[in-house]
Amino acid sequence: MNAEKPQATHQEQDELQFERIVFFSDAVFAIAITLLVIEIKVPEMGHHLASHSASVEELYQQWPGEFVKLFPKIFGFILSFLVIGQYWINHHRNFGIIRRFDRGLLWRNLLFLMCIAFIPFTTAFYSEYTYWSIPLMWYSANIALTGLMQWWVWKYASRNARLIDPSTNPHLIDQISLGHLGVPVAFSLSFIGGLLGYPFSISFTWVVIPLMIRFAHWRYERRIASQPV
Amino acid sequence: MNAEKPQATHQEQDELQFERIVFFSDAVFAIAITLLVIEIKVPEMGHHLASHSASVEELYQQWPGEFVKLFPKIFGFILSFLVIGQYWINHHRNFGIIRRFDRGLLWRNLLFLMCIAFIPFTTAFYSEYTYWSIPLMWYSANIALTGLMQWWVWKYASRNARLIDPSTNPHLIDQISLGHLGVPVAFSLSFIGGLLGYPFSISFTWVVIPLMIRFAHWRYERRIASQPV
Amino acid sequence: MNAEKPQATHQEQDELQFERIVFFSDAVFAIAITLLVIEIKVPEMGHHLASHSASVEELYQQWPGEFVKLFPKIFGFILSFLVIGQYWINHHRNFGIIRRFDRGLLWRNLLFLMCIAFIPFTTAFYSEYTYWSIPLMWYSANIALTGLMQWWVWKYASRNARLIDPSTNPHLIDQISLGHLGVPVAFSLSFIGGLLGYPFSISFTWVVIPLMIRFAHWRYERRIASQPV
Amino acid sequence: MNAEKPQATHQEQDELQFERIVFFSDAVFAIAITLLVIEIKVPEMGHHLASHSASVEELYQQWPGEFVKLFPKIFGFILSFLVIGQYWINHHRNFGIIRRFDRGLLWRNLLFLMCIAFIPFTTAFYSEYTYWSIPLMWYSANIALTGLMQWWVWKYASRNARLIDPSTNPHLIDQISLGHLGVPVAFSLSFIGGLLGYPFSISFTWVVIPLMIRFAHWRYERRIASQPV
Repeated sequence: MNAEKPQATHQEQDELQFERIVFFSDAVFAIAITLLVIEIKVPEMGHHLASHSASVEELYQQWPGEFVKLFPKIFGFILSFLVIGQYWINHHRNFGIIRRFDRGLLWRNLLFLMCIAFIPFTTAFYSEYTYWSIPLMWYSANIALTGLMQWWVWKYASRNARLIDPSTNPHLIDQISLGHLGVPVAFSLSFIGGLLGYPFSISFTWVVIPLMIRFAHWRYERRIASQPV
Repeated sequence: MNAEKPQATHQEQDELQFERIVFFSDAVFAIAITLLVIEIKVPEMGHHLASHSASVEELYQQWPGEFVKLFPKIFGFILSFLVIGQYWINHHRNFGIIRRFDRGLLWRNLLFLMCIAFIPFTTAFYSEYTYWSIPLMWYSANIALTGLMQWWVWKYASRNARLIDPSTNPHLIDQISLGHLGVPVAFSLSFIGGLLGYPFSISFTWVVIPLMIRFAHWRYERRIASQPV
Repeated sequence: MNAEKPQATHQEQDELQFERIVFFSDAVFAIAITLLVIEIKVPEMGHHLASHSASVEELYQQWPGEFVKLFPKIFGFILSFLVIGQYWINHHRNFGIIRRFDRGLLWRNLLFLMCIAFIPFTTAFYSEYTYWSIPLMWYSANIALTGLMQWWVWKYASRNARLIDPSTNPHLIDQISLGHLGVPVAFSLSFIGGLLGYPFSISFTWVVIPLMIRFAHWRYERRIASQPV
Repeated sequence: MNAEKPQATHQEQDELQFERIVFFSDAVFAIAITLLVIEIKVPEMGHHLASHSASVEELYQQWPGEFVKLFPKIFGFILSFLVIGQYWINHHRNFGIIRRFDRGLLWRNLLFLMCIAFIPFTTAFYSEYTYWSIPLMWYSANIALTGLMQWWVWKYASRNARLIDPSTNPHLIDQISLGHLGVPVAFSLSFIGGLLGYPFSISFTWVVIPLMIRFAHWRYERRIASQPV
């Protein structure tokens, strides 16, 4: 609005353009992570009985079966929430280092978000058929692929300091690259477990994820200790 | 983009990083609070009758039963909306005092948001079976746990001024900590009511919530009067 | 992070606090406006026939009935989208004049957003039973109430320049107050039409809404002409 | 809050007003793009069989049919995700050039977003009946219309530099206008294909979209080479 300071306006606009990328990504993350709950349906406990024409004892007999079906869905919700949360935290850290964007970053980030947006479906699929191989394989493949996409986005941005702050510690760049492979490795193992007919291999990730979180935290603490943020 | 002023860029980036946390949280809040309405299904009033092959009198006879089923769902929507709204206002105030973040805050905030994202399910569950004990207990436990998580996030951030403005009035910090326990206490009572077989104990929260809002407002007014914002 | 410039930090934080209110509101608006489409279900055209075991002629015979059911839903989607869009544009303008917030504004804004979040349900209800009185009355009441809430938020903020820029033209404040009553009046008329058993009274709003938009545009243009933005 | 610097406050407020438009648009984009996955339902593989009362062989026999039905939905999800992603990238670029807003831009942008919000429905409709003409025509018309709306928003903003930076290269403005017509042209062809009874014409867009992305990328690269960003 002021022709005398076009530079300032340009710079503000550039900042807004960069912010849009992270806020759009955040919105997709937030929707995907919240849609997970939509797939947990309210158990139907004999609607025709709900008018109290049946005895309460009869209704309670239906509960154990409903409960058994609710719990894998709740566990699926928690697992996917933690995984998407981990990816969001990675994204948050990466875009704290990335300083610029180009069309290549936009499309790679969109493909990464496409994988994130697909997780509510594979979570629901897996949670519905917990003990089956194929839903587990789809779920594991979805999550592993998402992690690989994130690694790809980071590689694209950090190679030769294409889009990141050139003063970034190269050791930190490598450490981040490596860290991206944690979740994909865990879920590749559960994918192989599904392939071999051991659907319970998913439980492995339940051990790996907390260990990874603890390890990532410890690594972060150590990193903090050695260099100020 | 300008090597001469990396400090400014770093500071801007830090602000963006902090903003992302609150905007991501806001998005999860907004989605959870809006998804509540999805669980209110349009009553099916004999679709096969909708082609006017039945008399209007016949159709209106179905209405009272449908209405009785709609109202607990609308009340559940309003109650959960107010509770999530209260948590959002708390979050809004807390992150007005919190100045910095670390990985510990990110994960605690994510776990809090996981509880928020779960509320649409427990609301739908409770609203479908309003007079039953177990759905009420799940719903109450979900809301009480959410409040405790928020208290935990605040304790983490405020202990020894870890992440907050060091000049914050210690009296204010204590007051906020205490205020977080209001909703959890109200819903713990309704949880106990459900456990003892008095599902109507939820109505207690309908009395407590407005009182709490009024009390919180009064406390806030008094606080405003004694120190400028 | 810098004790020497706490004022600047406070001011930045205040801005962030204000931004959170509008971005949270925007997120609720955006979700409500997008959820409208969820209620338009894909017509089921004999799934058992989809395997081409039936002749194409037989399938096409099912179409006209399906189409008749789709169109009121699409019209409901468009009407509600325009109404929520109008409310968003009002909100956008109002919060361009509002400069400060207090707890009273937060809660009144939340109650307004509760009405917005409820619109997808009443839209779906009305669209499913287009020619019935009671769904129309709920839908009209929901939209009219939403407009009255927005008027209330504005009255609260603007009375005695409580939260707005004190230099705001009083004529503009009055004009905005009046403008808020346009949509509620149109839908109160359709509510009364429903009450009297004329469900087609909704079509009145289809005439009123474009006129209102045109009038609001014309008023805005005139306002623009008399004072610079 | 400080009467001595109303100008600064006005400018900040103007920036916030502009940001709200892009963030609201981003939220609608993000929700529409993520809701696409909701329409992919978990295949029901004989729930009554899930209690392992049937032999595993019997269950696996149901899989091929379920798979055939899942794949068009997944392809629909990916196609619509890429299309909405393309529209978001266009929107992102356009609002990097647009500097001001007026009520005309707000309403045109809202109508564009209405088309975006409708895509999850037409995607689900098309994905459910992949080999039929009418769903394909609706889907193609929806996407083509969305692109034309975006072109219209851009024309409105750029004509006589109404709302854009007046120093914008006129060649760039023309190039952007032309680029907006790419997706609409591709989907107009698939619309005509549907009209003529060749539903597979949609596959044409699968060839056109990647070519377009590559062409847009190449054009962007060339543009980058000739002028710094």
